[in-house]
Amino acid sequence: MTAARLDKQKTIDLRKKHIGPSCKVFFSHDPIKIVQAQGQYMYDEKNDRYLDCINNVAHVGHCHPEVVKAGAKQMELLNTNSRFLHDNLVQYAQRLQATLPEKLSVCYFVNSGSEANDLALRLARQYTGHKDIITLENAYHGHISSLIEISPYKFHQLTDTEQSPHVHVALSPDTYRGKYREDHPDPAAAYADNVREIIEKVDDKGNKIAAFIAESLQSCGGQVIPPPGYFQKVAEHVRNAGGVFIADEVQVGFGRVGTHFWAFQLQGEDFVPDIVTMGKPIGNGHPMSCVITTKEIAEAFMSSGMDYFNTFGGNPVSCAIGQAVLDVIKKENLQANALAVGSYLSHLLEEQKEKHPLVGDVRGRGLFVGVELVRDRVKRTPTPWEFNFVLKLYQCRLKEERILLSADGPHRNVLKFKPPMCFSRQDADLAVQKIDQILTGIHVNRENKSDMS
Amino acid sequence: MTAARLDKQKTIDLRKKHIGPSCKVFFSHDPIKIVQAQGQYMYDEKNDRYLDCINNVAHVGHCHPEVVKAGAKQMELLNTNSRFLHDNLVQYAQRLQATLPEKLSVCYFVNSGSEANDLALRLARQYTGHKDIITLENAYHGHISSLIEISPYKFHQLTDTEQSPHVHVALSPDTYRGKYREDHPDPAAAYADNVREIIEKVDDKGNKIAAFIAESLQSCGGQVIPPPGYFQKVAEHVRNAGGVFIADEVQVGFGRVGTHFWAFQLQGEDFVPDIVTMGKPIGNGHPMSCVITTKEIAEAFMSSGMDYFNTFGGNPVSCAIGQAVLDVIKKENLQANALAVGSYLSHLLEEQKEKHPLVGDVRGRGLFVGVELVRDRVKRTPTPWEFNFVLKLYQCRLKEERILLSADGPHRNVLKFKPPMCFSRQDADLAVQKIDQILTGIHVNRENKSDMS
Repeated sequence: MTAARLDKQKTIDLRKKHIGPSCKVFFSHDPIKIVQAQGQYMYDEKNDRYLDCINNVAHVGHCHPEVVKAGAKQMELLNTNSRFLHDNLVQYAQRLQATLPEKLSVCYFVNSGSEANDLALRLARQYTGHKDIITLENAYHGHISSLIEISPYKFHQLTDTEQSPHVHVALSPDTYRGKYREDHPDPAAAYADNVREIIEKVDDKGNKIAAFIAESLQSCGGQVIPPPGYFQKVAEHVRNAGGVFIADEVQVGFGRVGTHFWAFQLQGEDFVPDIVTMGKPIGNGHPMSCVITTKEIAEAFMSSGMDYFNTFGGNPVSCAIGQAVLDVIKKENLQANALAVGSYLSHLLEEQKEKHPLVGDVRGRGLFVGVELVRDRVKRTPTPWEFNFVLKLYQCRLKEERILLSADGPHRNVLKFKPPMCFSRQDADLAVQKIDQILTGIHVNRENKSDMS
Repeated sequence: MTAARLDKQKTIDLRKKHIGPSCKVFFSHDPIKIVQAQGQYMYDEKNDRYLDCINNVAHVGHCHPEVVKAGAKQMELLNTNSRFLHDNLVQYAQRLQATLPEKLSVCYFVNSGSEANDLALRLARQYTGHKDIITLENAYHGHISSLIEISPYKFHQLTDTEQSPHVHVALSPDTYRGKYREDHPDPAAAYADNVREIIEKVDDKGNKIAAFIAESLQSCGGQVIPPPGYFQKVAEHVRNAGGVFIADEVQVGFGRVGTHFWAFQLQGEDFVPDIVTMGKPIGNGHPMSCVITTKEIAEAFMSSGMDYFNTFGGNPVSCAIGQAVLDVIKKENLQANALAVGSYLSHLLEEQKEKHPLVGDVRGRGLFVGVELVRDRVKRTPTPWEFNFVLKLYQCRLKEERILLSADGPHRNVLKFKPPMCFSRQDADLAVQKIDQILTGIHVNRENKSDMS
């Protein structure tokens, strides 16, 4: 039964009545009603086309026909739980494993990045027998209780924050705005030393580190790219303390960074995490995710005696969809496209930096790019959140231009590019051209009215 | 790319290598490889047909064509997150709401029963400002950290159980095996008094109750049907203490109990929970779930200042599938079928009870039926788990007969029927006929060899 399309205001009214208000819509003063999407384009109820620069879930492109077909075909045949044997499950696991260093060989299929990170913490705690977790400033690892605890991006939103005594926040390895910057002789070692110091303090209190967890590149935290070698040094400190290293690839995995399939590989060939979590892009929007770890950790987890069963995780439909996503990435050379178009986009944005003093920093790897806006380039003062500048910029102006872009980071002043991987040079041209127009307008305005004061 | 079907042994070998061993396959000594399913039947790689008596996820029948079609159609059109307006989201919420008492009006769409129950706890804690949770003996509410804490079914599996000081376990309202039985003048009040006593003890320690959580009918706990009026009395005690009542309908909702759409409604028209969680059957196998609560609780949750965003939750595909499930339940009168066939099945099983001393109790509502096996009817001694009797019974014998049935409960001696809702009288006849043959065989055996000793 397909209902007739609702009038937009009716959709808004019903949403107000029946949908939890804690989930904010984009452009809340004038939200968009999207009814269709294809590739990197989304269409509203008037058939107006939007260029999607933000949707890292629709990884191989919205509604990719091969992914849709694989899902539909398997849905017709069988969709059941993993207590039965099924080829899709084991073949998909085998293929995912093949993208990773050999020792990461055991998969747990779950339904969301949050479920994956929660399970990663359980694996780490069971394997090490320790309880404490080290996380990074501004980190976001998910929306369930155990992850809000380790997500400063979330728990700092609470007025009555009660930080868990078993969670410790390390400095964000941000070489643009952090404590150790690009002019530091060895920021990787300096930031890793901060982790070591935390471990020592935890130890002094008689506690023990179960895991260090980090997004391989921080996304909500402001598109932060840790200096190469940082993960290796952190892993050394953490392992010396009996803990494990969890790389959260939920936002940045599956070829997005262009040069590598996994973002943690940017750190160097010699770095291998103990646990990797995956999510968002894995099923191109289908609710699924995965945790991959070593045989030793998997066996320790089993030896607890507690069965782990996930009703939907690893069902034949999810695994068929996951395989189709891997097929399309390969067939359409999307990792290479991310590298080429991402480099081109970064180049265009660097030109914007030359032109507009507002652009303080452009940083990216492949199709994961951040543009940090500042009031003052020398002091790196973020554009003021209070002023709603960035919000206005992307919410009103870019949306009017039918470009979907968002801002994030602790100061909400980092424009985030993380488009579907089929994003083209023409798309990059269009997006940057619109940004240029807007920044030029702001510049003129500023000269005249100094409205950035 | 569809790979050729693997040899069964190869599937087993790959599973051993790449799939977390904590998830046990059914019939681990000789697991089944299911390749196709339709309605209440599953087919293995040799095309042998199994009657599925256990899959409460494939609610309207495996691979129901209307559900498949709705999912495929929407996958082609749009699958994105709920930061955009979409009719499927609000219309589905409106339809779910219409199945519930009016005050339960605000929906949060998430990806699994576990995510739903975790969010329910967060809602309760934020609304009440309290922390403590009361749960039932043998309860199972999910596999993520916060839920293992409130699931005695799970945390009792751990050797080094460390029960949270904020979690309190109340007596299971089991009138067959519990403290107050069918001969008690008012078991509902007696079991509710136990909850009241817990609240008083918590209060004495200076703590406060955020919520009482219970499956509307305990499933893993042994198909337990609480006496009518119990929930009302518990809710009164809990609300008097400033807490809320969470009804977990993940296993038993969506018409399964026959007389009502929701199992909590069996308690009486005057009972309304504050929060209801849904899962398994909601999408007929598609990974999705929902939490529904009152406007007051939703507003309190929002007022914390923390945004709640779920990447996949409430996407247009999930909502299309959810709506198709509601359509099919209605169109095919599946709730009425659950009542009619469930009653017939219970009647057949009652006949088995007359015939076989091993059958201690038959209890059920609609197509949610438990058969409790005992060594001694008067003492109600469970058939011994150590002896692997029940396990052998259903694992070997019923499986050989191509009937999929499972056993659960704290003594693993309760056979659980929770088949797809299209289960027919003929299916009931077949399943019970096979059980009869097996029980007869055991009886004869027992007379001869007393192998139940």
